[in-house]
Amino acid sequence: AQNAEDHFGQNQQIVVLGETLAATTQQVQQLQDSYYDILNANKVFVDEIMHLQKLIRAQFQVHNELINH
Amino acid sequence: AQNAEDHFGQNQQIVVLGETLAATTQQVQQLQDSYYDILNANKVFVDEIMHLQKLIRAQFQVHNELINH
Amino acid sequence: AQNAEDHFGQNQQIVVLGETLAATTQQVQQLQDSYYDILNANKVFVDEIMHLQKLIRAQFQVHNELINH
Repeated sequence: AQNAEDHFGQNQQIVVLGETLAATTQQVQQLQDSYYDILNANKVFVDEIMHLQKLIRAQFQVHNELINH
Repeated sequence: AQNAEDHFGQNQQIVVLGETLAATTQQVQQLQDSYYDILNANKVFVDEIMHLQKLIRAQFQVHNELINH
Repeated sequence: AQNAEDHFGQNQQIVVLGETLAATTQQVQQLQDSYYDILNANKVFVDEIMHLQKLIRAQFQVHNELINH
């Protein structure tokens, strides 16, 4: 009987571990998806920053023309 | 006796799994918090990039006025 | 015999839990590395945005000089 009780206790622990692990694995998968969202957002930042750099270079060119006329 | 030893071995494995899972779950929670930090940082980037775009548009307006005078 | 079968079943569950946990822990470690990559990318964004702010301030100075001459 003691052995059966121990066995039951171990089963319960295994069930709880399995449920906790399933929840953790799901949270990790959501974080993985969030990471891809961040990578996409960062690509937009890079594009926009490069666009701003280009505009500012164009403005320096305008300044040079204004100064030289 | 063999059965009791097996039982003890399983108990040890369950304890190690539980500890490893607790450490992993904690690391996942920290990553979740870090993800929120990144989301907040990205909001600041978006605001600042939009502010720079607005300033650059204002400067093109200044250029137009300088050129037309 | 029943007890030995139960024992075998539990062993299998423990093995599966261990393998799943190892895979999850590895994925968490990769996410941790990815998070450091994002932190480094964000430092570059901050530097570049501050550089753009500096350039735009310099251009407003040019404008003031052009307007006052």
